[in-house]
Amino acid sequence: MATADGQRVLRDLRHLRTMGAYKTGVHRPALSAEHVASINWLKGELEALGHRTTVDGIGNVLGEAPVNGRKLLGGSHLESQNYAGWLDGPLGVVYALEAARAVKADPALAGCGVDVAAWCDEEGHFGHFVGSKSGIGKLSEADIDAAVDRTSGTPMREALRAAGFEGRPRFTVDAKRYVGFLEAHIEQGDWLEANKLKIGVVTAVVGSRNFVISFEGTQNHAGTTRMAIRKDAGVACARLIVAIEQLFPTICGPRTVWTTGRVTLHPGDPSIIPGRAEMLFQFRDTDAALLDKLEDALRNLVAEADRAGPCRVTLEQQRKGMPAVMADSLQSAIEAAAQAHLPGCHTRMPSGAGHDAQILAEVMPAGMVFIPSIGGISHHWSENTADEDIVLGAQVYVDAVARLLKG
Amino acid sequence: MATADGQRVLRDLRHLRTMGAYKTGVHRPALSAEHVASINWLKGELEALGHRTTVDGIGNVLGEAPVNGRKLLGGSHLESQNYAGWLDGPLGVVYALEAARAVKADPALAGCGVDVAAWCDEEGHFGHFVGSKSGIGKLSEADIDAAVDRTSGTPMREALRAAGFEGRPRFTVDAKRYVGFLEAHIEQGDWLEANKLKIGVVTAVVGSRNFVISFEGTQNHAGTTRMAIRKDAGVACARLIVAIEQLFPTICGPRTVWTTGRVTLHPGDPSIIPGRAEMLFQFRDTDAALLDKLEDALRNLVAEADRAGPCRVTLEQQRKGMPAVMADSLQSAIEAAAQAHLPGCHTRMPSGAGHDAQILAEVMPAGMVFIPSIGGISHHWSENTADEDIVLGAQVYVDAVARLLKG
Repeated sequence: MATADGQRVLRDLRHLRTMGAYKTGVHRPALSAEHVASINWLKGELEALGHRTTVDGIGNVLGEAPVNGRKLLGGSHLESQNYAGWLDGPLGVVYALEAARAVKADPALAGCGVDVAAWCDEEGHFGHFVGSKSGIGKLSEADIDAAVDRTSGTPMREALRAAGFEGRPRFTVDAKRYVGFLEAHIEQGDWLEANKLKIGVVTAVVGSRNFVISFEGTQNHAGTTRMAIRKDAGVACARLIVAIEQLFPTICGPRTVWTTGRVTLHPGDPSIIPGRAEMLFQFRDTDAALLDKLEDALRNLVAEADRAGPCRVTLEQQRKGMPAVMADSLQSAIEAAAQAHLPGCHTRMPSGAGHDAQILAEVMPAGMVFIPSIGGISHHWSENTADEDIVLGAQVYVDAVARLLKG
Repeated sequence: MATADGQRVLRDLRHLRTMGAYKTGVHRPALSAEHVASINWLKGELEALGHRTTVDGIGNVLGEAPVNGRKLLGGSHLESQNYAGWLDGPLGVVYALEAARAVKADPALAGCGVDVAAWCDEEGHFGHFVGSKSGIGKLSEADIDAAVDRTSGTPMREALRAAGFEGRPRFTVDAKRYVGFLEAHIEQGDWLEANKLKIGVVTAVVGSRNFVISFEGTQNHAGTTRMAIRKDAGVACARLIVAIEQLFPTICGPRTVWTTGRVTLHPGDPSIIPGRAEMLFQFRDTDAALLDKLEDALRNLVAEADRAGPCRVTLEQQRKGMPAVMADSLQSAIEAAAQAHLPGCHTRMPSGAGHDAQILAEVMPAGMVFIPSIGGISHHWSENTADEDIVLGAQVYVDAVARLLKG
């Protein structure tokens, strides 16, 4: 029976943490020297296992099991957000690596195999899922030409050259080769922890709608301009944020989330009435129809605010991510594996964050396993998960893979 | 009879506009080469008039009339806000210069004189009224040591050295020498224009209270964190801004103004719930008791928001400017002069903006004359006033000076 070696999983994860260590987390941006080190480590591990391993022209890693039977593709990403956690990404890669080892070692699964992928830059330093999109053939050379590091401004071409990946061909996965793609990840929320659960069986990755909402008023002197004639873009912006907080709870679903992440007032001087304001607003849900309904509600609020005056209020849609439904076959396998290892420890739940699995879902059945995040913290160096939860997750992952490979 | 030469006033103002010309305005920051050029021009004009003229160690200009009779001090400032208007400051200096010329030319005022001052940096590039404070003996050497240009970060000491003023003594005005200080300025609001008036007789310069209000929530992932457990500092900030907009109109006076000039959400990423927010808030009125009442109301709102949660809300007081009442003697003289030149063209009104006159008022009777601002625009290169209003203002200013000197 294919079995995860929990201590080996912890050892691998801790070793990866040394590459760009920052407090108890890591700083390992895409294509940094630390990221390249982690890629090379993974390549070495996969080759030691006998996998044909490629690091391609976008920094994607693919290790292919040299077998002729049923195969599953597992993986996630190795780079981190800036000064962030040690598990976001590496967990899914190490579980897949462990599953490849366990399947190889299990005579009952002879001929079957787990291919392992590490997709470059899921965290969006240079773009939006550039690695996994390349892996399904949906990233053009022009996309790469245009990509720059959001922190340093370095062009991605330059970063690829420095990493030693420039000019290599880029691979596209052969979807027919696989029973599906399975990605493990920390939950990044507190649902499992709050409900004393250990395994999340992801039903769908949420879709998101992103907007820039702009307020056009009149910049003027904060001392000399009477209240009656002001067109204060900052106040108009605050009013819209509060109006959204009043309206959205009346139409949202149980797991809908919405966020104003940034507000900018121009010119931002304490003694000048803001003549212009801008807010970045987004909402997410797994239900495409509900996303449409929320978008209608938002557009109505914006139109009302614009009509009411005194500022012009306009909305510009940015990125629109469609919800990605996870395959029943993978959900069932994860659920059965979780039930076998710790009955009642699991729940079906959506993923509020985006993941490579939503991209792979476009070309093959995809699934995701969540394990708990302590305090729901993520994208921060203090992100963590109890060792025993990491170990249990690995066992469930390997068991689910075995079930899928047995068919 | 002392008479202003309106065309000479316009010529002087247009000449000053060439120093740092920017579109139809000027960019003439304190102690810039353009500012120094304007100082040198003023010094030349005053010396040509026979005034004993000093440019001192803080960049203040003082031209003293060599007379033994009654004297008035007039003036304003020559530097501008960044990329701002041509009249804010220079108007008051040129009117004072014109009054000095007119008084000298009027045999009926023999022995009387107008001293002319240009106070450095009223616009606050390096501090808060550093020039006029130095002129009344309230600026220490340590204050200058600490002052840096808010735009470039250049220490004031370095800027004074570059301007050639380093090491010079600083003058303090002899308050007993004067019947008072008179400053002319554009209104910077639309009250005169909206009411088809030409002259504002300033009753008081408003006092202001400035605050930093901070919101402490929990930074987290905008996709994975359920609404129910969020502590969104940005939403808390928007709610307070709206609460202020609801409460303040019920307790304010007819000319109270309040402004949130800056809002900052941390970290400001579209996909991260703001864990921290900060707003810069100020309000102004001429009534010190009302300022206290508004401050109490604000403190109550902050305490209520803090109690209600989920974010901590705290308030830190910054600068507190006391209202400065203009002297009756100067108000009456301006009013009589305005009535003589264009009956019914004038009104008494507060100044919503700060001016050097509020500093001079600490040591001598002070008064201010306002002329209309087209569209109420100021601190912007498009700031302007009709030529005929500039000319009328100069006549009223000179007439008011003559009335004060006659006693």
